[in-house]
Amino acid sequence: MFLGTAAAFASATALSSFMSKSEKPMLAHHVFFWLKNPASSEDRAKLIEGLRTLQKIETVRQLHIGIPADTEKRPVIDASYSVSELIFFDSLEGQNSYQEHPIHKKFVENCSALWQKVVVYDAMEV
Amino acid sequence: MFLGTAAAFASATALSSFMSKSEKPMLAHHVFFWLKNPASSEDRAKLIEGLRTLQKIETVRQLHIGIPADTEKRPVIDASYSVSELIFFDSLEGQNSYQEHPIHKKFVENCSALWQKVVVYDAMEV
Repeated sequence: MFLGTAAAFASATALSSFMSKSEKPMLAHHVFFWLKNPASSEDRAKLIEGLRTLQKIETVRQLHIGIPADTEKRPVIDASYSVSELIFFDSLEGQNSYQEHPIHKKFVENCSALWQKVVVYDAMEV
Repeated sequence: MFLGTAAAFASATALSSFMSKSEKPMLAHHVFFWLKNPASSEDRAKLIEGLRTLQKIETVRQLHIGIPADTEKRPVIDASYSVSELIFFDSLEGQNSYQEHPIHKKFVENCSALWQKVVVYDAMEV
């Protein structure tokens, strides 16, 4: 048992020093929005336009705005959302200051009436 | 009404030609795994080790493996998963051939006993 745990620990340690293609760990902040009027292309465009403004926030390293891709339909795939926002930050602090940034607050003020539901996943790279 | 729709359409068209920081649209394939034994660091390390192998698949442009980040606790944040896998592909075809790739199939064969639930979001950049 001890050897098993030690081996797993050594393995995890080795892995954490072996980063993927980025130079350092990143925090991926992925937000999925469900519109109140999912059939409205105007509402979708308005939300996407609002999301574009987030690009100007200093701690935002990458911003990817998406809509459900036309991949194979499988029960594990959730394609019910309207728009997704994926932002990479260098650190936890970068994400925290983004939350408090006036541009982010303005976006929420301008666009929150458009959505009925939001789900957020924050993942720290290992 | 017509003007509103036309304006929204023009706006969406302008936006789609204004890519974020990547050169071309990308498909973000984000998978969240819930382990059967979420408290087992050995199981988590084994899953992460399996996920690293996916990097060798030709159509994988970027692979980011994450665990829940220590961001502020808010009701909209789902931090209940154990491990996340975020892969960027250049296209729908890249994602499709990844699904059928022997390395991917081997990963599922070796690791699927570790998880109890998987949720996938496929987002095409706009």
